[in-house]
Amino acid sequence: MVISARNGLTGKIDSIKLGEVMASIKIAVDEPAIITAIITKESAEDLGLAEGDKVKAIIKSTNIMVEK
Amino acid sequence: MVISARNGLTGKIDSIKLGEVMASIKIAVDEPAIITAIITKESAEDLGLAEGDKVKAIIKSTNIMVEK
Amino acid sequence: MVISARNGLTGKIDSIKLGEVMASIKIAVDEPAIITAIITKESAEDLGLAEGDKVKAIIKSTNIMVEK
Amino acid sequence: MVISARNGLTGKIDSIKLGEVMASIKIAVDEPAIITAIITKESAEDLGLAEGDKVKAIIKSTNIMVEK
Amino acid sequence: MVISARNGLTGKIDSIKLGEVMASIKIAVDEPAIITAIITKESAEDLGLAEGDKVKAIIKSTNIMVEK
Amino acid sequence: MVISARNGLTGKIDSIKLGEVMASIKIAVDEPAIITAIITKESAEDLGLAEGDKVKAIIKSTNIMVEK
Repeated sequence: MVISARNGLTGKIDSIKLGEVMASIKIAVDEPAIITAIITKESAEDLGLAEGDKVKAIIKSTNIMVEK
Repeated sequence: MVISARNGLTGKIDSIKLGEVMASIKIAVDEPAIITAIITKESAEDLGLAEGDKVKAIIKSTNIMVEK
Repeated sequence: MVISARNGLTGKIDSIKLGEVMASIKIAVDEPAIITAIITKESAEDLGLAEGDKVKAIIKSTNIMVEK
Repeated sequence: MVISARNGLTGKIDSIKLGEVMASIKIAVDEPAIITAIITKESAEDLGLAEGDKVKAIIKSTNIMVEK
Repeated sequence: MVISARNGLTGKIDSIKLGEVMASIKIAVDEPAIITAIITKESAEDLGLAEGDKVKAIIKSTNIMVEK
Repeated sequence: MVISARNGLTGKIDSIKLGEVMASIKIAVDEPAIITAIITKESAEDLGLAEGDKVKAIIKSTNIMVEK
């Protein structure tokens, strides 16, 4: 089966910290990948995004899943 | 100013597609990074996650922001 | 008042686990429902989605709210 | 491979609507399932959640992925 | 019924833009409110957050729902 | 650098609660702001949203980041 969320970053687990309910998993990502960000058209225009621009993809940690 | 969501993946914009309201930004990420995933402790245990495991970080594209 | 996020799945609380800050609520869902997933057009096409296809809706637990 | 986000609701695609960038997929879910919601402990206490309570799991459509 | 996501900001709709699938709703918020952000303990410590600090709550627009 | 997620609400930290892995940050927001919600066109139409409508922006706390 294939999932629609195909932003997949391959890496190795660096460390794990367990709480009562939640867990923090640190992953060392070292393989190149193409990732897709969906933002508003308005933001894209306000930031003046253009092909070739150097940017940073920012992700809140609660929005990252782990596949093993 | 610094933001709490510090999963930052550096890359170059590969392509941009604009809709009426939303935009899709493809970013070629090629620098190594440590990223943090917050999942349930239960998932971490069910997947048997351990340091050194090869895993994939999966992210829905609507959860990726762009910083320039 | 009505909320825009109208994916609502009716069920019964099966178990509750409390941490310091977060809580995990397990809900047994047993009523049929129509739910709406918003994905990229690109994903829909890559998965070859068509009416009648048997699929699975996948949701990260941090994205589920509880209404009582 | 197994994904940490294991809230999975099985169903059939009812309808598909394509935009320029995004797509809306309506899924008729009819199999019982146990789903896990992660909320704050404070919310759980303020709502007075207890085992056996009849509740609704609410999900914003942009947070639902499709697996086929 | 009450929802667990109780960060509620009261305001007036300023403008609406409709696409094929998605819609952008701009809301002018002018009433004071207490909102709760859940971040990692690590981020809270790295930012050196303390009571009384002047901060900004940042929210991706796809994560805001509208109640009317 | 500028981030695409520009819903920014200025306020003061009211209280902080630390768990093992997660932290809850309460912020008193008192400055007016225009915020943008992205919902489905279908929801916008079903709610009958129109300019001038009094509404509430609802946000799950796990989707709020803190910038300092």
